Amino acid sequence: MKTVFVISFNGKNYNGWQVQPNKPSVQKAFQNTVERLLGYDVRLTGCSRTDSGVHANEYFCHIDSETGISPEKLPLALNRLLPDDISVNRAFLADDGFHSRYSATGKEYVYVIWNSRLKNVFWHDVSFRFPRHIDVDYVNSVAADFCGTHDFSSFVSARGGIEDTVRTIKYFRTERDGDFIKLYICADGFLYNMVRIMVGTVLQTMTGTIKIPIKEIIAKKDRSFAGMTAPPQGLYLNRVFY
Amino acid sequence: MKTVFVISFNGKNYNGWQVQPNKPSVQKAFQNTVERLLGYDVRLTGCSRTDSGVHANEYFCHIDSETGISPEKLPLALNRLLPDDISVNRAFLADDGFHSRYSATGKEYVYVIWNSRLKNVFWHDVSFRFPRHIDVDYVNSVAADFCGTHDFSSFVSARGGIEDTVRTIKYFRTERDGDFIKLYICADGFLYNMVRIMVGTVLQTMTGTIKIPIKEIIAKKDRSFAGMTAPPQGLYLNRVFY
Repeated sequence: MKTVFVISFNGKNYNGWQVQPNKPSVQKAFQNTVERLLGYDVRLTGCSRTDSGVHANEYFCHIDSETGISPEKLPLALNRLLPDDISVNRAFLADDGFHSRYSATGKEYVYVIWNSRLKNVFWHDVSFRFPRHIDVDYVNSVAADFCGTHDFSSFVSARGGIEDTVRTIKYFRTERDGDFIKLYICADGFLYNMVRIMVGTVLQTMTGTIKIPIKEIIAKKDRSFAGMTAPPQGLYLNRVFY
Repeated sequence: MKTVFVISFNGKNYNGWQVQPNKPSVQKAFQNTVERLLGYDVRLTGCSRTDSGVHANEYFCHIDSETGISPEKLPLALNRLLPDDISVNRAFLADDGFHSRYSATGKEYVYVIWNSRLKNVFWHDVSFRFPRHIDVDYVNSVAADFCGTHDFSSFVSARGGIEDTVRTIKYFRTERDGDFIKLYICADGFLYNMVRIMVGTVLQTMTGTIKIPIKEIIAKKDRSFAGMTAPPQGLYLNRVFY
């Protein structure tokens, strides 16, 4: 049996999920805490890499064994030892066939924009401020062109080693919540920086900076036709589907 | 004429509003920024002291002169220079009779509670986590006893030099917003730590730790009968009335 943890984290103080030498990572902080609780070394596997400064409302990770502590008691025990910016929401046992990353059938990200000319002193690390008024209906009409199965080569940052750039976007819908705009994007998987480039491109299409329709940008298969990479602090991994 | 600034601040990194030697304060940070913009020294007067770690959605402060910059342009000019945790929402000119503190006729505070057994990795510095379920109707029925004009000697922390401890509470009402509980308290003025002691006392009355009715605690005029001082990170100055 494997032990699976469903966690949340505020990415502000971390260089993403993945362990990196001499840099704080969520994986390292969480793994250290699990090891401190259990008293022996574990290997922690996460559902995805996340960029520096990106957050998670729901993130799955696992270790390849049981812990000797009932899964119901693990969240409380771990939360006492974890820093304030990482939380275990629940834990459960899964059979050996489960894998946080390879068993995932889809993920939903939410990109949070503070849409105001004013600063937001409480949300500056956990949203992207965009002062120009966002027309949600327009954004939804543009974003619809992403839906379906496409080669998303135009929406990936160069990082080398990407084999298959075809992904299926299940939905991309935008809602207003007061002065906040939330863009929900669900796909079977995402390429490196894909959500942030999609959000940046939608915003720049809205402002008129980008004049080529989304469908044509996709067809170009060339990153240079898409828009800016929206900053990381607005991005949250929101749900993972298995 | 005086120049009045309506600002917001996240109190996490500050030892309250008031300038203190060798400690960061909102007053010092804001005054430094105004001086940097204007190129000369100013004296900044605020509407109230706030405790270390307390926040403000709306805080009024003023300098005793005009700036040579139109009030409409001041927010943008100052926001560019201010740290992310202080924001100017608007500025206006007032006649010499205006005083941020002495002209205020009332203030509204909001105390924000994250009411969940789970941690909240995004709100840990800007709310108080209280795991036990809060019954809003019960809280409202208890809190009603604070309303009206009373001697609040039981609800003030010792700090010396307090002359008049009579205040008028206009309302004290509590709302649930998902897993957040928000307690809104409006009065003509507040004593040192008064809101935090009121909130702590209401919570401890709800849990049964405090068994004396609020009316009797008020009548005792003795701090030792009231409850805990709720922690500062849940408290926001929300509105100031003139």
